[in-house]
Amino acid sequence: MRDFSGDHRWLSINTATVRKSRGTDLPLPDIIEACVRRGIRAISPWRDQVAAAGLAEVSKLVKTHGLELSGYCRGGMFPAADPAGLRAADDDNRRAVDEAKELNAACLVLVVGGLPGALAGKAAHKDIALSRTQVHDGIARLLEYARAAGMPLAIEPLHPMYAADRACINTMEQALDVCDALDPPRTGALGVAVDVYHVWWDPKLQAQIARAGRERLLALHVCDWLTPTTDLLNDRGMMGDGVIDIPRIRGWMEAQGFAGYSEVEIFSTGNWWLRDQGEVLDTCIQRHRTAV
Amino acid sequence: MRDFSGDHRWLSINTATVRKSRGTDLPLPDIIEACVRRGIRAISPWRDQVAAAGLAEVSKLVKTHGLELSGYCRGGMFPAADPAGLRAADDDNRRAVDEAKELNAACLVLVVGGLPGALAGKAAHKDIALSRTQVHDGIARLLEYARAAGMPLAIEPLHPMYAADRACINTMEQALDVCDALDPPRTGALGVAVDVYHVWWDPKLQAQIARAGRERLLALHVCDWLTPTTDLLNDRGMMGDGVIDIPRIRGWMEAQGFAGYSEVEIFSTGNWWLRDQGEVLDTCIQRHRTAV
Repeated sequence: MRDFSGDHRWLSINTATVRKSRGTDLPLPDIIEACVRRGIRAISPWRDQVAAAGLAEVSKLVKTHGLELSGYCRGGMFPAADPAGLRAADDDNRRAVDEAKELNAACLVLVVGGLPGALAGKAAHKDIALSRTQVHDGIARLLEYARAAGMPLAIEPLHPMYAADRACINTMEQALDVCDALDPPRTGALGVAVDVYHVWWDPKLQAQIARAGRERLLALHVCDWLTPTTDLLNDRGMMGDGVIDIPRIRGWMEAQGFAGYSEVEIFSTGNWWLRDQGEVLDTCIQRHRTAV
Repeated sequence: MRDFSGDHRWLSINTATVRKSRGTDLPLPDIIEACVRRGIRAISPWRDQVAAAGLAEVSKLVKTHGLELSGYCRGGMFPAADPAGLRAADDDNRRAVDEAKELNAACLVLVVGGLPGALAGKAAHKDIALSRTQVHDGIARLLEYARAAGMPLAIEPLHPMYAADRACINTMEQALDVCDALDPPRTGALGVAVDVYHVWWDPKLQAQIARAGRERLLALHVCDWLTPTTDLLNDRGMMGDGVIDIPRIRGWMEAQGFAGYSEVEIFSTGNWWLRDQGEVLDTCIQRHRTAV
């Protein structure tokens, strides 16, 4: 297992972590500059942040600074209530692949979607099995396109508390079943993003990480689970502040040969997004060395 | 599958559902009277409510009214940071079995506990595997006692969002692995309580219900998953107000021969606990007939 205590060369910052500084939205170029100043070598930006700054501008910045992208957030949201909705998701996902390619991302992260309409509070139906079928079929279609573009797709199993509104793939086992079905030869074109926040509780986690193997372990996201957790979405903790044994999980991944970045992804309306960006990044660096 | 539309003979009220009326704590005898007035034939009371009213008094009320207990809430909380803590949990759980027996409950529901101290916000450690071992061993010890008393134990897999602080058994598969290990001959002494709120998201739910079979399906708890859910613990929805396909899950259970009560268990600080008890019970009856 790699020793992270001496430096932060394997730290990546998911730009949602510093989406806000002192409660105010932060433009992506400012985030990039702040990361570069601290010797952070990789980021994982969100599409809305890239769109706001302009894809060409972000691409230029990334190249100028020699930054790597540990991933691109995010494609997915496949289920829809009608064929037009399914087609619109397909179109949007192909654009996400193109953007990820332009930014030379290591993978496009897929948050696959849940019951159509549920995120807006009005689920079109209650048939989660149907959503799962639509997700499977949607990934199959996108995989053809992504394979041609040379962009790996990383299915991110989301915590079961998001099954209704964000992602109906909720365990590593379920994500890997999709990988086995759609990419049996393990080409590396399809795999998983392991976010400790989503999967730490899973009694089968170690076994499923072993099942995934190096070819399918495309990304590692870290933060921490707080007790109590006061909000289902935006109360993630800084590594070390919660109950997740992050080094143990990283060890399981590295035992399979995973050698990529450890990407910090924290949504925190009540704490970290209220702080100054510099303080948050400095804390990420420190915790990367001590708690990851 | 039983037809619930014509009456509410298979409705049970978990007394937490009307723990408060218009925001004020309601004594258990008042809850019992209100249920009896409406022809509700079964309840599932909580230990703190029973203790406040007095076990003998509650036992008398239950017998007088010919009420059944679809379950007794709850035993469990096995993990501890030291041997004294483990022994204290054992003692308390044996008392819970005795109380359940006195009240002639169908089963004692087990919320097994998570990381010791986490419920108070200070987890003693991050080793969830250790907690799971302690849970396994604790259930094994309690099972001897409960078997002698003739009181079935129902492991309730809790939603993974409670893995840290309330229960580290989080899927039906995991609960049934414990059942298989501790009661291989399927005597009925050990089984599961299926709460749709905790398990609806699980892609393996149908298969695991089939695996459980009649002998291990000891209880069915119902409420609904709201989108959005604003609180991890106390924002459960009334059946029909959320995204869970409750009849489908009940159908899977009844296909295995489950023929018990459908127990309504709703924690709702922001909605149902603010309403009048009578309105809540009447709504439970109506939704039992239309949405369960």
